[in-house]
Amino acid sequence: MDYTILAPIGSVVALLFALYLALKVKRAPEGNDLMKKISLAVRKGANAYLKRQYTGVIIFFAVMFIILLVLALLGYLTIFVPFAFLTGGFFSGLSGFIGMKIATAANARTAHAAQHSLNSGLRISFSSGAVMGFVVVGLGLLDISIWYFLLKAVFSGLPEAEQVQAITSAMLTFGMGASSMALFARVGGGIFTKAADVGADLVGKVEAGIPEDDPRNPAVIADNVGDNVGDVAGMGADLYESYVGSIISTGALAVAAGLGFSGVTIPMVMAAIGILASIIGTFFVRTKEGASQKNLLGALRRGTWISAVLVAGAAFPIIYFFLGSDKIGLYGAVISGLLAGILIGFFTEYFTSDSYKPTRKLAKTSLTGPATIIIGGISLGMLSTGLPVIIVGVSVLVSYYISGGAADFNMGLYGIGLSAVGMLSTLGITLATDAYGPVADNAGGIAEMAHLGEEVRERTDALDSLGNTTAATGKGFAIGSAALTALALIASYIAEVKILAPDFNFDLSITNPSVLVGLFVGGMLPFLFASLTMDAVGRAAQSIVVEVRRQFREITGLMDGNAEPDYASCVDICTKSAQKEMILPAVLAVVAPIVVGLILGVNGVAGMLAGATVCGFILAVMMANSGGAWDNAKKYIEGGEHGGKGSDAHKAAVVGDTVGDPFKDTSGPSINILIKLLSMVSIVFASVVIAFSLIK
Amino acid sequence: MDYTILAPIGSVVALLFALYLALKVKRAPEGNDLMKKISLAVRKGANAYLKRQYTGVIIFFAVMFIILLVLALLGYLTIFVPFAFLTGGFFSGLSGFIGMKIATAANARTAHAAQHSLNSGLRISFSSGAVMGFVVVGLGLLDISIWYFLLKAVFSGLPEAEQVQAITSAMLTFGMGASSMALFARVGGGIFTKAADVGADLVGKVEAGIPEDDPRNPAVIADNVGDNVGDVAGMGADLYESYVGSIISTGALAVAAGLGFSGVTIPMVMAAIGILASIIGTFFVRTKEGASQKNLLGALRRGTWISAVLVAGAAFPIIYFFLGSDKIGLYGAVISGLLAGILIGFFTEYFTSDSYKPTRKLAKTSLTGPATIIIGGISLGMLSTGLPVIIVGVSVLVSYYISGGAADFNMGLYGIGLSAVGMLSTLGITLATDAYGPVADNAGGIAEMAHLGEEVRERTDALDSLGNTTAATGKGFAIGSAALTALALIASYIAEVKILAPDFNFDLSITNPSVLVGLFVGGMLPFLFASLTMDAVGRAAQSIVVEVRRQFREITGLMDGNAEPDYASCVDICTKSAQKEMILPAVLAVVAPIVVGLILGVNGVAGMLAGATVCGFILAVMMANSGGAWDNAKKYIEGGEHGGKGSDAHKAAVVGDTVGDPFKDTSGPSINILIKLLSMVSIVFASVVIAFSLIK
Repeated sequence: MDYTILAPIGSVVALLFALYLALKVKRAPEGNDLMKKISLAVRKGANAYLKRQYTGVIIFFAVMFIILLVLALLGYLTIFVPFAFLTGGFFSGLSGFIGMKIATAANARTAHAAQHSLNSGLRISFSSGAVMGFVVVGLGLLDISIWYFLLKAVFSGLPEAEQVQAITSAMLTFGMGASSMALFARVGGGIFTKAADVGADLVGKVEAGIPEDDPRNPAVIADNVGDNVGDVAGMGADLYESYVGSIISTGALAVAAGLGFSGVTIPMVMAAIGILASIIGTFFVRTKEGASQKNLLGALRRGTWISAVLVAGAAFPIIYFFLGSDKIGLYGAVISGLLAGILIGFFTEYFTSDSYKPTRKLAKTSLTGPATIIIGGISLGMLSTGLPVIIVGVSVLVSYYISGGAADFNMGLYGIGLSAVGMLSTLGITLATDAYGPVADNAGGIAEMAHLGEEVRERTDALDSLGNTTAATGKGFAIGSAALTALALIASYIAEVKILAPDFNFDLSITNPSVLVGLFVGGMLPFLFASLTMDAVGRAAQSIVVEVRRQFREITGLMDGNAEPDYASCVDICTKSAQKEMILPAVLAVVAPIVVGLILGVNGVAGMLAGATVCGFILAVMMANSGGAWDNAKKYIEGGEHGGKGSDAHKAAVVGDTVGDPFKDTSGPSINILIKLLSMVSIVFASVVIAFSLIK
Repeated sequence: MDYTILAPIGSVVALLFALYLALKVKRAPEGNDLMKKISLAVRKGANAYLKRQYTGVIIFFAVMFIILLVLALLGYLTIFVPFAFLTGGFFSGLSGFIGMKIATAANARTAHAAQHSLNSGLRISFSSGAVMGFVVVGLGLLDISIWYFLLKAVFSGLPEAEQVQAITSAMLTFGMGASSMALFARVGGGIFTKAADVGADLVGKVEAGIPEDDPRNPAVIADNVGDNVGDVAGMGADLYESYVGSIISTGALAVAAGLGFSGVTIPMVMAAIGILASIIGTFFVRTKEGASQKNLLGALRRGTWISAVLVAGAAFPIIYFFLGSDKIGLYGAVISGLLAGILIGFFTEYFTSDSYKPTRKLAKTSLTGPATIIIGGISLGMLSTGLPVIIVGVSVLVSYYISGGAADFNMGLYGIGLSAVGMLSTLGITLATDAYGPVADNAGGIAEMAHLGEEVRERTDALDSLGNTTAATGKGFAIGSAALTALALIASYIAEVKILAPDFNFDLSITNPSVLVGLFVGGMLPFLFASLTMDAVGRAAQSIVVEVRRQFREITGLMDGNAEPDYASCVDICTKSAQKEMILPAVLAVVAPIVVGLILGVNGVAGMLAGATVCGFILAVMMANSGGAWDNAKKYIEGGEHGGKGSDAHKAAVVGDTVGDPFKDTSGPSINILIKLLSMVSIVFASVVIAFSLIK
């Protein structure tokens, strides 16, 4: 029996479960007419943005499709690559789209439910997050399954070893579609959401002195739209890409390790088991009525933990069954990946939550003004890179050696791949706990705009703050898995070159000047990329500032509440800016590995990928944690510390938070995708680079 | 004839020239009694600081000496190492000390001369900078020469090949002393100067609203002391270390390249020729009376350029003479190093000077407040890493291939070493143009405090601003040469291990997990280091803020000018803080490579060094350029743009400048030293790591 069939079964189960949850959310009442109206405006804005984004993306995909098709016709790629590229992009985009749909449907419903109790609010928003989580893993596994069985049938004439190689080799390339789509979603969405957020805050909160989410602020709807297109759709596409990338790269590494079909089946079956474990986990996310915020956090954590334990338990028999007792060391790799994910998440929380020392210390630096809180936040972010690096390092070494890497190098690499699969296997539920945050955030906005009263706002704030905590954990997972997946992809790249050009003279030593220069260039790319995306946010926010000021000036009666602002124009400006600004970073990510390859050759590309992974990982951790800590330091002060809202300390903290916005929600997370997309592009263009590079 | 004798001759010439210049400076009048008094206070403060710093450093050196001695007695090191370590530290410290002495002697004299004309002011301050420049190269080359001839005599019984190897191997280790000293000087001095600066600004300028360098500010003397112990003594020790490091590492690489004594002689002779070229260059730094600021900049540039052209001209016959026409490709390496230094300097200026677009654009972001100028500055710094990385990359490739690296790997590495020597050969004059800035800055402070009138202050400001431009160029040199020297040191490390353990099984491939984990850990170290040093500045500045506030509160009549503040207490606080805070970063730099080595082994250490060099270079460029651009954006606004002094835009720009202070003057430059010190420590502890590492 071909146990790989468990993968499509798992994927269908995930999609059905997502459908069930979506219907449950839809059945909940949406609240009064004003709430419906606001929710509709957000939904319309988000739809309009995604429509426009997808139009732009389609052009990119069409151009790339033609390039890949030409390369395929010239014999540099197999004919499946251009089509696999398209499906990867399509399913990734679809994940984000569905996630956004359900999130914009759930926001008013969460606000309405929060009128009843905290627990009811949590149920709706968490269900909405879970829809997203299960759609991502469901569609990811579906795409993998379709190609796997299709390619298996096509290559059925080949002997087994060659058949596996042909399948995994072709499947690897479809990751490039998913990565490209993810980049557009993350960068475009990230620019949109932060331009709206920063623009709204700068004029509304700072200049006009009106509260956050005040309906008089013309950018308030754009801000809420941003939560959905950036934090929901962007994150969905991002993790779709990590999930798929880890499974297919591990499959590709199985070939070199000589594990044949079993080696390919294991990550797919583990993903299927992970889905079941995640579904079971979701049933433990419930509390009694009247539960405290701490109880709720406990409930969310319990769900994640139970899923992780289930996967850990199931992985042992799976590996034993497929590979026997002498390869059981690979089980250690899975566990090390799971543990690494949990630990990175924990330390992310430690460094960014105001329950712990670092963020409280940071809040205190606001007392001496904006300069010191900025220095403090950057310093905190830099400091926080230490432990995640060590955790990833230990996880890599443990995975490698426990899998038998000392005796068999390729088996060790397969182990590293499997550790990434282990980390991501429970993505269904970790993503659920992450994606519910923006829904709660939106619900808070709606509660504010619809004047639902203090109590409701307090509850949605509690949900939102809980969401910040779980989002920190989720971000730790996203970054950690990106690093491990990128490492697996580098190994896959080298394995792929060995297949394409068996006689290629590898010199991957760091003393090889090509590798060294590659390391430098690769290390610089995340910085360049972060610069471009931050600048884009700055420019887009600037245009929002101008527009909001114009409306305040020109629309009479706006500030008294007698006239309505023109929300749509702000949404439109954000959409256009995000559209325009996402092109350059995306082109950089696609062109850089090709140019580096054509000059420095395969060795240089490998160096570039290593440099980008190392620097990118560290920079992403730094930016995410600096941003998170500034955000929570501000909230901590708003809770009454150091003078509370309106004090000078608070003003300084707002500056920190504003700087942190593009750090944590645009540039930082985009870097995760960048490092994987670079690998994907390198893999797809490997044969071109082998043929034409200046330095061999 | 042993042409290496040119090295000690060159060094003595440099020292004599420095003495001549120092006497010239001393002959100039120091101005009125108030000026003398202020200058004395600064001198006393700087002396007190250096005295305390050296006391602390002596403890560190004593401990390290004992450790090295024990290792030598156990047979892990040759017996020369502990002593070479001491001399390296001693001469490095001496360079900084003399530089500081002359700078504190020249500050009042420059202010006095500026009463006469801009040109007179330039002459004094530039001469003072030149003293520093020539002391650094003179002492550096002296130390190298002493050890070279001593070791040559000791090992005279060996056959030539073994003799050269024994000499270069022992000499390599004395760089660790210089690097350690440099780290203490840069970190300690950097913390001192920025704590005083930030502390003085935060309370004086922002809270009390008194101008910069106002004598009523209790931290004003500490601020001026800081310029001398940080920007002068710190920078001297830093570049001493680069200079020496590039020469000895290139010498070590000569062994593997099979060049014998000729290969060792070339960098030493080139250094000697560079000294002569620099001396000649200084005579072109003169203008007619009444010259404009632009003329002055032209004069400074002319001096540097003439020296560079002279070295470029002399290098050809040197290489031809020692190695013949078939190795003449190495000449290309020297030229590529020289050009890279000039180009990096140019782009540093482009990104940080308000004559160009980037900084002007940054100044404009101040209009929307502190948050946007912070985002803009970080983005600018990140963007500015692109070209330096490409320049270093091209320089590495050109040096390697033009030297014949394609056919002979070791010859290519020697070429890379020689390119670093080329870049640093004219250090005498580049350092002079760099080190005069802080003197002019101090002169401005004295002019302000001694009420010398608007005109004088304007002239010293012009000198200072000129100094900022040349300092940008100088910083580009410091960073670029650090990268190339670090690369040469990594190669030397590997060469050293090959000598110590000829059978060692190298696997420096980036797919080796030890190398990969090493890359991650190495990449994280500059971030951790930057975090520690920035935090240290923050804490020290905090204590200055408290003290200045206390004096404003408790000393009656202080604000009316009827009572004098207690300057000494601020100097004392800075001294103590810098003292305490420099320990942890220094220990990190020494301990990290040993711990990484004991766990990951030689391959892991090589990975760590590569990771630290790549990330460190990029981060250092970013921090230096963000900081420089914020500084000049503020000055640009103070020149009347965007509302000028006192406007909201100016306030935002002050926040940017304050954040930039530790970026550009503490953390950024310290990273240069960190990456070299890591290599030096790795080289010294190589035999211990080979013997005891967990992973081989």
